Amino acid sequence: MRPIIALLTDFGLRDPYVAQVKAVILSYCRDAAIIDVTHEISAFNELQAAFILKINAPYMPPGTIHVSVIDPGVGSKRRSIIIETRRGDIFIGPDTGFMIPAAEELGINAVYVIDDSKLPPRISETFHARDVFAPVAGMIASGKDVRELGREVSDYVRFKLPEPKISEDEIGVTVMHVDRFGNVITNLKSRESPLRVGERIRVSMKDKEITCEFVKSYAYMGVGEPLLTIGGSGYVEFSINRGSAAERFGLRPGDKLRLIRLTTH
Amino acid sequence: MRPIIALLTDFGLRDPYVAQVKAVILSYCRDAAIIDVTHEISAFNELQAAFILKINAPYMPPGTIHVSVIDPGVGSKRRSIIIETRRGDIFIGPDTGFMIPAAEELGINAVYVIDDSKLPPRISETFHARDVFAPVAGMIASGKDVRELGREVSDYVRFKLPEPKISEDEIGVTVMHVDRFGNVITNLKSRESPLRVGERIRVSMKDKEITCEFVKSYAYMGVGEPLLTIGGSGYVEFSINRGSAAERFGLRPGDKLRLIRLTTH
Amino acid sequence: MRPIIALLTDFGLRDPYVAQVKAVILSYCRDAAIIDVTHEISAFNELQAAFILKINAPYMPPGTIHVSVIDPGVGSKRRSIIIETRRGDIFIGPDTGFMIPAAEELGINAVYVIDDSKLPPRISETFHARDVFAPVAGMIASGKDVRELGREVSDYVRFKLPEPKISEDEIGVTVMHVDRFGNVITNLKSRESPLRVGERIRVSMKDKEITCEFVKSYAYMGVGEPLLTIGGSGYVEFSINRGSAAERFGLRPGDKLRLIRLTTH
Repeated sequence: MRPIIALLTDFGLRDPYVAQVKAVILSYCRDAAIIDVTHEISAFNELQAAFILKINAPYMPPGTIHVSVIDPGVGSKRRSIIIETRRGDIFIGPDTGFMIPAAEELGINAVYVIDDSKLPPRISETFHARDVFAPVAGMIASGKDVRELGREVSDYVRFKLPEPKISEDEIGVTVMHVDRFGNVITNLKSRESPLRVGERIRVSMKDKEITCEFVKSYAYMGVGEPLLTIGGSGYVEFSINRGSAAERFGLRPGDKLRLIRLTTH
Repeated sequence: MRPIIALLTDFGLRDPYVAQVKAVILSYCRDAAIIDVTHEISAFNELQAAFILKINAPYMPPGTIHVSVIDPGVGSKRRSIIIETRRGDIFIGPDTGFMIPAAEELGINAVYVIDDSKLPPRISETFHARDVFAPVAGMIASGKDVRELGREVSDYVRFKLPEPKISEDEIGVTVMHVDRFGNVITNLKSRESPLRVGERIRVSMKDKEITCEFVKSYAYMGVGEPLLTIGGSGYVEFSINRGSAAERFGLRPGDKLRLIRLTTH
Repeated sequence: MRPIIALLTDFGLRDPYVAQVKAVILSYCRDAAIIDVTHEISAFNELQAAFILKINAPYMPPGTIHVSVIDPGVGSKRRSIIIETRRGDIFIGPDTGFMIPAAEELGINAVYVIDDSKLPPRISETFHARDVFAPVAGMIASGKDVRELGREVSDYVRFKLPEPKISEDEIGVTVMHVDRFGNVITNLKSRESPLRVGERIRVSMKDKEITCEFVKSYAYMGVGEPLLTIGGSGYVEFSINRGSAAERFGLRPGDKLRLIRLTTH
C-alpha cells in the first residue's frame, strides 16, 4: 500500500522549497502519497506548528510519515530526530521540541537522532528539509528500518503547550489558533471539557465579556451570533455563525479567555 | 485506473482541514488521484462556489468524483447528497443547491440522500467534509455502488445562477468571477453568445462606459487595452491585455454589465 | 516508474486553472506524479519565472517533465516548444525564452516546435496550458517520442538572466528573488562565488550600507543580525537570522547590490 507522507512547514507556496522536498521523497519512493498539511505556519512560529501538528496528527492514517519543518536553527548544532509512535507513525524534523506534543498525543515509542553518515552528501547547510528530512522520509517510506538511520536517545528536547485550567465554575483557556473562518480554537480538548450542550457561558476576554451558549454546531445559533462548540479537531472553539469571532473580538493566538459557567450544574 | 477526486472548498490552505479530508479519502482508496480545484472560495460564498464548480466540472475527466464543501449549515438539519450525472460523474456535498448548476451542466441522472447509518461514527458535528463527504467519496472511489449509500430523492434543493439577457442589439450580463489576472468573467457562455470576432462593443458599467473589440485572445490588443474574449472555461470575459480589468474598472462579482453591439450585423 | 511532471505558472490557486491542467495530464497518464513548483509567479513576470525555474530544475529528478506557463502572448503567433536536456528532462511551454536559462543550466539537447496537428482540437485560444502544453506533457509522460510531436528548430527565442560582475575586491549582484522568509536571493551562484566562510563584507545598497559576515547558515549570527550565506538553491543570499532582510533594507527583485570584500585575502 502506498505510504502516506504528511508535510507541515513554514515554507509557503510561492517559493520552490516544498517542490524540492517532494522531489527528493519521490526519488526514494516514487509511489508515496504526499499530503500537504499546511505550508502556511507563520515563519519560525514553533508554538503554532506544535499545536497544528498535534491536532492534525490523530486524523492522519496510522503509519503516516510526518515531515515537519519549522527550523530557524538550521545549520547550527541542533540535532535532527525521528520519533516513532506506538501506532506506527513517524515524525521527522529538527530536535527543537515542537513535534513532541503531537507525538505524545499518539504515544512516543522511541526517539532516534539521525546519523548524518547514513545520508547523501549535504547540498547546502540552509535546507535540511530537502537534504536531511526528505531523504530520511523517503528511505523509511521505501521500507528502511528507522534503527538503521540513527541511534535511540532519551535526551531529546521537551516542549509543553499551555494547558487549560479547569475548576468547577470556570475554565481558563488559551487561544491556540485562529482558522480561516475566524474560529478561535482554544486548548480545551473536547474529552477534557465539562461543558455540556445547552449550557450558557460567559466568555471573559481581556477588555470585554459576552455571554453565549455551548452548542452542537455553528448553525444552531442565528447568523452573526457568538457561540462555543467543538471544532473538527476536537477542541472547544469560540465562534460566530457565518462570521469571524477573531475579528469581532480582536482575538489572537496566545490570548487568554475565561469561560465562566452560568448554568447551575 | 486510478479514480480522480476533485476537491472544491472554502477551507483555505492555512488550516489542516483539507489534509484531513484527503487522509480519509486515501484511507478508503489509497490509489485515488486527488485534484485540488480550489480551496479559496470566499468563506460561505455559495454563489461563487456554484459558478466555479459549473465552469470547471466539464473539464474534469468523465467519472470524476467531486467533493464540494461550502457548508455554513454544517451540523444543522440540512441533508447530505450524492448526485450522479449522465456521463458518470459524482458530486458529493451538502443539499444546499450550489452543486446543482454544475450537475445540470453535465446532466443529472439521479440524486441520493446519504444514509448516515452507512457511515463510520461521526467524530464531530462541525466537519462533515471529513466525517461524511470524504468517507462517501472514498467508498465510491473504491467501487461501492452509490445506491448502497443512500436513497434516491427528487426534492433536493434547487439553485439558479443568473442568466444573461440576450437581445439583438445588446446583452445584459452579470460578473460571476474575477480571476487572478483581473479578468472579469461573465455568465455569457461562448456557445450562447452572438458576439463575433472583430465586433466593436460598448461595455456599459454602473458609472462608466468604454468601447472595445471582441477578439480571439488577449494578445490581439495592445498592452493595457481593454477587450472582450472567450476565456478558457468558455465564457465571455472582459479583460485588459497584461492588466486587470477588474481593478481598472472597479468591477466585482454580482455587478451588471450591458454589452451594446455597435457593429452592424 | 511514475513519471514526474513539475508545474510552474502564474495562475495562482484561487481559480480552477491549475486543476484543469492536471486533469488533462491525468487523462493521458493517470499514474503521473505531479509536483507543484509554484503557481505564485507574479502575473506575466517572465524574469521571475526564468529565475525560479532555473534554480529549481536541477533539484527535480532527471527526466522530469516541466510544464511552465507564464504566457501573456497566448493566442498570438508565438510558438509552443519542447526542450530536451542532456540528462533527459523535458521543458514544455511558450517560445518566449523564459525556460531557456533553466534548460541551459541542465544542457540543451534539442528544441522542438510543437506541431498543432498532433494535438486534440483546441477548446479556447486563451488557455494553451490546458489545451496545448498539458496534452503534450501527458503524451510524453505516457511514452510518446518528442520527435513525433514537433520538428527540431534552432531559431527558438533566447533569454539571458543578469550575470554578477566579479572582480577581486568586489562583486556586483542583482536581487533575483525575495523568498517567504525575506531572504534576498542574488544571482551569485555558490560555485562562482569567491566568498569564504568568515569573511567580512560591506553590502552597499542604493541608499545605505551595512557590514556583515559570510556564514555557513542563518543560525551562526544572533537573532536579528544580517548575514550573507549560501541558500538552499546554491545562490548567495543576503539574510537576517529569524528576520526579513528584504523588509529591513527595502530590497526588491531587480535591485543591485555591491558586495565589497573587507577581509584581506
